[in-house]
Amino acid sequence: MATFRNEVQVRFAHVDAAGIMFYPRYFGLINDLVEDWFASGLKKSFRQLHLKEKRAVPTAHIEVDFHAPSKLEDELIFELSVARLGTTSCTLNIRARCEGEDRLSGKLILVHMDMESGKSMPWCTPLRKAMQDWMAEPGEGA
Amino acid sequence: MATFRNEVQVRFAHVDAAGIMFYPRYFGLINDLVEDWFASGLKKSFRQLHLKEKRAVPTAHIEVDFHAPSKLEDELIFELSVARLGTTSCTLNIRARCEGEDRLSGKLILVHMDMESGKSMPWCTPLRKAMQDWMAEPGEGA
Amino acid sequence: MATFRNEVQVRFAHVDAAGIMFYPRYFGLINDLVEDWFASGLKKSFRQLHLKEKRAVPTAHIEVDFHAPSKLEDELIFELSVARLGTTSCTLNIRARCEGEDRLSGKLILVHMDMESGKSMPWCTPLRKAMQDWMAEPGEGA
Amino acid sequence: MATFRNEVQVRFAHVDAAGIMFYPRYFGLINDLVEDWFASGLKKSFRQLHLKEKRAVPTAHIEVDFHAPSKLEDELIFELSVARLGTTSCTLNIRARCEGEDRLSGKLILVHMDMESGKSMPWCTPLRKAMQDWMAEPGEGA
Repeated sequence: MATFRNEVQVRFAHVDAAGIMFYPRYFGLINDLVEDWFASGLKKSFRQLHLKEKRAVPTAHIEVDFHAPSKLEDELIFELSVARLGTTSCTLNIRARCEGEDRLSGKLILVHMDMESGKSMPWCTPLRKAMQDWMAEPGEGA
Repeated sequence: MATFRNEVQVRFAHVDAAGIMFYPRYFGLINDLVEDWFASGLKKSFRQLHLKEKRAVPTAHIEVDFHAPSKLEDELIFELSVARLGTTSCTLNIRARCEGEDRLSGKLILVHMDMESGKSMPWCTPLRKAMQDWMAEPGEGA
Repeated sequence: MATFRNEVQVRFAHVDAAGIMFYPRYFGLINDLVEDWFASGLKKSFRQLHLKEKRAVPTAHIEVDFHAPSKLEDELIFELSVARLGTTSCTLNIRARCEGEDRLSGKLILVHMDMESGKSMPWCTPLRKAMQDWMAEPGEGA
Repeated sequence: MATFRNEVQVRFAHVDAAGIMFYPRYFGLINDLVEDWFASGLKKSFRQLHLKEKRAVPTAHIEVDFHAPSKLEDELIFELSVARLGTTSCTLNIRARCEGEDRLSGKLILVHMDMESGKSMPWCTPLRKAMQDWMAEPGEGA
């Protein structure tokens, strides 16, 4: 299955008084992962989507298990794959590892929304096709 | 059931290009809620716990449903209650509302950890008793 | 001279691996201070200003001296006063203390900007008058 | 003069309700720049410095002029050079540009501090020599 990856080094700004990743900051990194997937994987940047086309992809649900702490300067590999593509939403599996050790795993549900009305709407054909094509790839980075 | 509450106004720093709460920032606010509950509800501040007693309460699992967007200057009421008190962990229900409208609901699992060893350990008697006493209250802020 | 104040407790989310305020986070707190001054001191909330009237007050210059570190759970008092009110800008003095000890002091320059054109423009009469009235107060919180 | 550079794309997480970089977030990026310079330019990572050697380099002063707003997906080039190397401190010039347009410029003063005592102390010989060698380079990335 196609998997999208990015890499993030744990920075001083990420860690807490215990010297480990402050867990709320993982969610910023998960959003970065989704943003990179839209730009590089689906060829639809967030700037284009939000600012020009006035559409958004808010997160309706997210659940994460944290398996082990991440320390300053750890090199994390984040991965994303599509678990399910629905009419107005998609479910993504996410994972982060460091040197083969799982740090987090979970899933999130994005909803395709019209920013003016604030209502969900079916994925447009180009974005649906981009997701389907991307899912059909034999495993970019998998 | 005893419920712990705090209130947070949605600030300029919280919102995204769409003018609504950027969802990763909710997790910082959820951590603030837990921090306030420890300090005010359990009388064990994070400073005391982390820096003096070298214990931590990392989040092992979190899941959140987002029901409606929060806008700049919305007054959010966050609520926390204990769903289950285990030997080395506890499960908390969380919720945020604005003027009666649900914004998010979910739960998280905290684990009691020794910072030096990085291992989980049973709740100490004072902290366990503080949680039990707090849970038995008829509903502070409920 | 009129001084606007707010209070902020140093939270777990603010501190770094050394257990002290991570200095970039002070700038978020300084922005909160300016936001509160607009809402409470000048009666012009950022929501009204930015989202309804499409005006912004970007920071053109800021300089800060950090005098002493702030620790987890310190109660900081932030203060703001107007050093100079110009045609399209204003210069604010800022300060933060804890129990009488200076933590930071500095100044910043805000520019009144039209969001559509991205150009600076003279303060509107109501906002200029609000600033002048506020400056003339004998010292709210001084 | 030797100049250290890194590149940062403006992300969704960086921008505010006006769709431009929220200025407090620049200070996180400036800290990342200093962190990268220590790791790559001086071969002394923040993990080594802070967590192993119990030394810190807090910012005692910073001043920044913001010249033009940065928009979502702008590719920023941050630059750092040493303006002055003192006994216990150093003054750094910083700048960020996008496609030749200045976005910010300024300077900051770092102090070499012993974390246990909280006192400043002279740069150790290896770190002083690393800074001097780095400054003498004909312009890495300049």
